[in-house]
Amino acid sequence: MNRQELVNLIRERKSYLCVGLDTDIQKIPKHLLSLPDPIFAFNKAIIDATKDLCVSYKINTAFYECQGIRGWESLQRTVEYIPKGIFTIADAKRGDIGNTSTYYAKTFFDTYGFDSVTVAPYMGRDSVTPFLGFSEKWAIVLGLTSNEGSQDFQQLQTSEGLLYEQVMKTTASWGSPDNMMFVVGATQADSIAAIRRILPDHFFLVPGVGAQGGSLKEISEKGLNKDAGLLVNASRAIIYAGNDERFAEDAREAAKAYQAEMAEYLSAL
Amino acid sequence: MNRQELVNLIRERKSYLCVGLDTDIQKIPKHLLSLPDPIFAFNKAIIDATKDLCVSYKINTAFYECQGIRGWESLQRTVEYIPKGIFTIADAKRGDIGNTSTYYAKTFFDTYGFDSVTVAPYMGRDSVTPFLGFSEKWAIVLGLTSNEGSQDFQQLQTSEGLLYEQVMKTTASWGSPDNMMFVVGATQADSIAAIRRILPDHFFLVPGVGAQGGSLKEISEKGLNKDAGLLVNASRAIIYAGNDERFAEDAREAAKAYQAEMAEYLSAL
Repeated sequence: MNRQELVNLIRERKSYLCVGLDTDIQKIPKHLLSLPDPIFAFNKAIIDATKDLCVSYKINTAFYECQGIRGWESLQRTVEYIPKGIFTIADAKRGDIGNTSTYYAKTFFDTYGFDSVTVAPYMGRDSVTPFLGFSEKWAIVLGLTSNEGSQDFQQLQTSEGLLYEQVMKTTASWGSPDNMMFVVGATQADSIAAIRRILPDHFFLVPGVGAQGGSLKEISEKGLNKDAGLLVNASRAIIYAGNDERFAEDAREAAKAYQAEMAEYLSAL
Repeated sequence: MNRQELVNLIRERKSYLCVGLDTDIQKIPKHLLSLPDPIFAFNKAIIDATKDLCVSYKINTAFYECQGIRGWESLQRTVEYIPKGIFTIADAKRGDIGNTSTYYAKTFFDTYGFDSVTVAPYMGRDSVTPFLGFSEKWAIVLGLTSNEGSQDFQQLQTSEGLLYEQVMKTTASWGSPDNMMFVVGATQADSIAAIRRILPDHFFLVPGVGAQGGSLKEISEKGLNKDAGLLVNASRAIIYAGNDERFAEDAREAAKAYQAEMAEYLSAL
């Protein structure tokens, strides 16, 4: 999906919501466990209930990988089930030497058909650029993450400013706002206005709303740009809103609340 | 595998060689391609030919992941085929918020049974520590990598020294030399002596010998400690030493040359 298509989708749906399919076999409603692929059955119901309210689905691969090969089967069924025209994110946080990063890019873009993949920047240029050579595909690079550990290294002072600022500025110079986004945690609202000044045009993928405690209002006020420029992800707060046979309806209600709030912030742009 | 077992294995075999099974379907001998699982057939022949010369096998997951589900099947068959008592490394470079890193640890330690997994440190403490809570399992954290891109961020000057030094010092404080190793590229020989002074006891996994141009002699002189403290990986230089029906014998010859050189350096300890 290209940038204009994503921006159009956001305007049309009045939503910059990304639903995170962090589907954990131990947390899904018990009545699904007797089905042949409970993870896919759960995801299918969540997608059916939310697909008109969000613009993106994010699949964190860890939840699927830990199930071994059948987990990858659930992942593949899920990404194939997501309706065309919705932006798909493989939240895989990959990155390796150039030769090897190319294989990761092929994995998520060609083998599974995702629109984007999250990328860890520690190994530098040749670990990131292989993700940029695919038409209408995106690298979403970790900038300032939502977790407590983001203080350990990302916020170190370097000769060029804070490390995450330096990572984002340098990495941005290897691509463009048409093939690169950045992860900026919703729990980092104090920093998002400064990051927006450094990178006025890029999309930010913002996890950390909901279970992790980030404020949608604050990150929207500080992070939205003329094209929206945000994809705000909620995972647990939506997919586990309920835990019985009505779980999909409960997920829809939770997603609807986010979407309604987003429509308000978008109308003020 | 615990540290003492690894040290004993190194002494017994007079080898600190890790064979990297970076098996690329496009590079393996053509006569294997008609078999049901060519990647596993290749790995099996390489393992049979080298298992008495090395102390470790490293599987870079990217080469398997890009083949989709059948790639994971090849990976699983391969890790199950590696003889017990040889140290196995999932070179997967994972790392996520704590909740999610736990799933990655389970994936590689429990689901596939690896002894260790490589971990990307950018997300900080809660992304690394979930890999440390498994008995006789290891996190191998990226320190100073072998690629050109290691200059971009790892070598930035921070208020506490070079970033990679700071990453290694801080990360080391979260674990011990019994459950943590570091990746230090063989192409970084100038730095390895200084890194050894900072971390006298830790094992370093050293990729970059062979195709990437690192010198085994130099990294051994500067990096060995009383327990060896090094696992030196060669991938392409061993597994693609030949490319016809004699490929396994050619791989054995290449591995034997590394092992013989290592025996010399070990005898000088």
